Amino acid sequence: MSLSRPDNAAQTRDASGSTPLLDVQGLDDVRGIALQQVGIKEVCMPIQILQKDGKIQEVAANARLSVGLPKELKGTHMSRFVMLLNDWRKNKVFSMNLREFLVDLKARLSAETAQADIGFRYFVEKAGPASGLTAPSPVDCKFSGRLTATQYQFVLGLVIPICTLCPCSKAISKYGAHNQRAELRAQIIIDSDNDHKMLWIEDLVENLEQAASCPVYPLVKRSDEKWMTERAYENPKFVEDVIRDSILILRDTHGVLGFDLEVEALESIHGHNAWAQHAENFEWVVE
Amino acid sequence: MSLSRPDNAAQTRDASGSTPLLDVQGLDDVRGIALQQVGIKEVCMPIQILQKDGKIQEVAANARLSVGLPKELKGTHMSRFVMLLNDWRKNKVFSMNLREFLVDLKARLSAETAQADIGFRYFVEKAGPASGLTAPSPVDCKFSGRLTATQYQFVLGLVIPICTLCPCSKAISKYGAHNQRAELRAQIIIDSDNDHKMLWIEDLVENLEQAASCPVYPLVKRSDEKWMTERAYENPKFVEDVIRDSILILRDTHGVLGFDLEVEALESIHGHNAWAQHAENFEWVVE
Amino acid sequence: MSLSRPDNAAQTRDASGSTPLLDVQGLDDVRGIALQQVGIKEVCMPIQILQKDGKIQEVAANARLSVGLPKELKGTHMSRFVMLLNDWRKNKVFSMNLREFLVDLKARLSAETAQADIGFRYFVEKAGPASGLTAPSPVDCKFSGRLTATQYQFVLGLVIPICTLCPCSKAISKYGAHNQRAELRAQIIIDSDNDHKMLWIEDLVENLEQAASCPVYPLVKRSDEKWMTERAYENPKFVEDVIRDSILILRDTHGVLGFDLEVEALESIHGHNAWAQHAENFEWVVE
Amino acid sequence: MSLSRPDNAAQTRDASGSTPLLDVQGLDDVRGIALQQVGIKEVCMPIQILQKDGKIQEVAANARLSVGLPKELKGTHMSRFVMLLNDWRKNKVFSMNLREFLVDLKARLSAETAQADIGFRYFVEKAGPASGLTAPSPVDCKFSGRLTATQYQFVLGLVIPICTLCPCSKAISKYGAHNQRAELRAQIIIDSDNDHKMLWIEDLVENLEQAASCPVYPLVKRSDEKWMTERAYENPKFVEDVIRDSILILRDTHGVLGFDLEVEALESIHGHNAWAQHAENFEWVVE
Repeated sequence: MSLSRPDNAAQTRDASGSTPLLDVQGLDDVRGIALQQVGIKEVCMPIQILQKDGKIQEVAANARLSVGLPKELKGTHMSRFVMLLNDWRKNKVFSMNLREFLVDLKARLSAETAQADIGFRYFVEKAGPASGLTAPSPVDCKFSGRLTATQYQFVLGLVIPICTLCPCSKAISKYGAHNQRAELRAQIIIDSDNDHKMLWIEDLVENLEQAASCPVYPLVKRSDEKWMTERAYENPKFVEDVIRDSILILRDTHGVLGFDLEVEALESIHGHNAWAQHAENFEWVVE
Repeated sequence: MSLSRPDNAAQTRDASGSTPLLDVQGLDDVRGIALQQVGIKEVCMPIQILQKDGKIQEVAANARLSVGLPKELKGTHMSRFVMLLNDWRKNKVFSMNLREFLVDLKARLSAETAQADIGFRYFVEKAGPASGLTAPSPVDCKFSGRLTATQYQFVLGLVIPICTLCPCSKAISKYGAHNQRAELRAQIIIDSDNDHKMLWIEDLVENLEQAASCPVYPLVKRSDEKWMTERAYENPKFVEDVIRDSILILRDTHGVLGFDLEVEALESIHGHNAWAQHAENFEWVVE
Repeated sequence: MSLSRPDNAAQTRDASGSTPLLDVQGLDDVRGIALQQVGIKEVCMPIQILQKDGKIQEVAANARLSVGLPKELKGTHMSRFVMLLNDWRKNKVFSMNLREFLVDLKARLSAETAQADIGFRYFVEKAGPASGLTAPSPVDCKFSGRLTATQYQFVLGLVIPICTLCPCSKAISKYGAHNQRAELRAQIIIDSDNDHKMLWIEDLVENLEQAASCPVYPLVKRSDEKWMTERAYENPKFVEDVIRDSILILRDTHGVLGFDLEVEALESIHGHNAWAQHAENFEWVVE
Repeated sequence: MSLSRPDNAAQTRDASGSTPLLDVQGLDDVRGIALQQVGIKEVCMPIQILQKDGKIQEVAANARLSVGLPKELKGTHMSRFVMLLNDWRKNKVFSMNLREFLVDLKARLSAETAQADIGFRYFVEKAGPASGLTAPSPVDCKFSGRLTATQYQFVLGLVIPICTLCPCSKAISKYGAHNQRAELRAQIIIDSDNDHKMLWIEDLVENLEQAASCPVYPLVKRSDEKWMTERAYENPKFVEDVIRDSILILRDTHGVLGFDLEVEALESIHGHNAWAQHAENFEWVVE
């Protein structure tokens, strides 16, 4: 398994043009194993995202970019991933379609398959339910795309903070009911031929929040707090209820091809969490 | 989607015996959606693990336990997961076979399917390569099992810290070569009919470390440091090399049915990481 | 600022006895800067902790160990920290007094000052308030000690999960009140001359939990859930209330010399947290 | 310690104007304990930061905002923190002086003291040392300010990824030397009367990187990799060396009043880290 002799390797020149630097990644590999993904992770750059209102939001992306590596090659050229992302962040706006980015990635790396997972904190403006006062509310998002020789797929990841109020606690107690912050985590396969009627993060978040006992809000005046407390009490939900109602919502959303959902409630009566998971029509394309 | 009337619900009595407490989880659900996993997460308890040398190691487990929920039922009874894990931690030793635990889980929850993911930090005693001095070395492990009506599967998760030294850096530089800490993360499907020739964490870690430029050690005297520095320099590896050599090792390991591997190197020349991933015969059973 | 010539350096022999290996750490340093702390971090080992009931609990420690470095020396000998911790984990039981450990540390490293921060997850058995059913409940602890030429100090760190119910939400709403999981984080300076009437983690946790709207429990049957829901509703607390009541409790605890407290509530109506901090008589000794 | 009767409480009206909503936070408190900090944590919003080149960088801030609470008051009004940050993010540019923000915070909360800790990932454009190719490089920053009745203080927090190469490993080995990614973490007290000759994140990062064996770069072509490998090998540093050289740099920086430094190296030969810490003239103002 040792490194083969570099004698027949491709060579390159350094920046000064004077010294040929060996292209070790371009060497032959004799193990005969093609690899599914080779690339870089935790690459951070500011990128631009298209908002529903047509404006641009600059976000701090944390990306994982990879390509398939044929069995003949020893390694991939990792700086090219950084260069491509750097080109895109300056010249392009990212939206819920990574096909063009992945086509570029495949070309730049001379690869047969390419994959990108681009995570970022996205802000949606949100108004208090009673006061109407607005503030930005953070949603952790991920754009994931995979492109093979014959197929392309896009998955949107969302982490939506919500509130759940326990139906059992309400039913058995003289007064009150335990409630807590919870997270609704969704991975949603988006129909890539559906661009003309584009889905938006803003809408998906707003729709999925309806599955909670109550949404959470960034700016809560006393009138909002009263509204939310009563709303949650009138609308008790187990994690099981939240995930079932989320399923109904996503089944009804045009342009959604499949999903994998998780709900995790930071129970206020335990140190551990209640949790539910369910997937429908959720399969990544594989060659 | 609202909570159905509790009139016909199963009831229970509280500890004093005096008040019937409604079993809200046992209520009917009308949405018609069976859920794949419902349960608890981040439950922490000390449990006992069987070591290769036959001794018992007590570890701090962090568990996720779930069952499938039929479409007729509103919810599951989450305290039963805690009770079962609590019974087992007192009376049983965990090993790389969760079948009996999952049979108990299915029975206790009256469920058709059950799944457990039990993470823990496990210590293996490791001797310096030159000094021979030993100290415990931590390996983050996970025991994952799934039991359906007809199938059972066990997956071992391992996170093994290693060192990688860059072949390109070595080849092009007058002296030295950048190297770094890396993580080899493996999920390994273990043949559950292979118990008589049991695989051990200790052996798998020791074997997979051979795929690195050099293993890491917890207690390093100067003679060990010299040994390791020279060993890594003589044995340069990209993440691509580590993962390919890991694949060769696991293909050769009796009792391994499949695997999903990742290698992530905390590159000493970037703030981001080099990364590779590859899976073979790695599919969770699904009903 | 460059490395001085190693000609006059102390030398050592490697394991084989054949090669003298330079002691680079023992070289002179010319910058004239004594350093407060030099050592190792994220060292993980199983260690033994004395429980209140006299039994031993084995825990997975994550330690940071350091010594002061005189201005004349280039570096410290980091393997000695690992060796000392390894000796202690095999031969000694840790309790809320690290003086002897730090005396050993100073001696082993030939240092004037030594410091240890040893974190671990500790389990206390906890009974449901109505059912009386017990299970282990995790508390994240830290033993911190500092020893100088003239002074010794010990600080216990505790992270206690609790429940808070909002007084404002209760007061303004027709029914219900938002509540949530919160963390009470305490750093407590323990009187080291108070060993004969030793303070215990078990007691401190149980006492401080009384400052919450309600403690949390690992194993919660329906009767417990009813008890907790009503208890929290009858006992609303802001983070301000929890920290004030914690202060009153610690002021009243014999053997407590000072403290730094934080309360952080994972508000169920926001994505952000409510937070309070207060310290009394909390100063680390400094030379 | 129970909640006092709300009869004499200040009241407010909800958004509709129809219902008076009790101001529970404004109630009297009888415990007689003034609290040092009460506020909110993990509040996320986009804010604007002034760059050295005069342009504005929009970053995703994660803030902790607090005020001192007098002993007479039961609680603070947490929504006002969110409102103030929301006003500022729209109308103001943040720089390394939080005095005006804290004056606003004190006024808005009717408090005697105020504190803000605003963390964000900041990008500096960085050119490869040989290729000259540029890309954004992330630096985790924190702006911390405290304002009391008589004093104001500002602390800049920086987390700078660097590379360290071990002098011992180099000295004792036939070839090579272990090296690794490390983090230089600085908290720097900035002279607030020094605004006319303002310190910049860009400059501080560039200067402090000189204390490493080699800086890290986001975009590394082969010529850069050769340069970095050789540079690190020619420039071996223990964590002790990095922190001492950082001290010399900061002592020489006009406008720096004090600092607390940490260096943590993710050793490529261990699973644990080498670590050093040192503070000079680093004290937060206290009333």
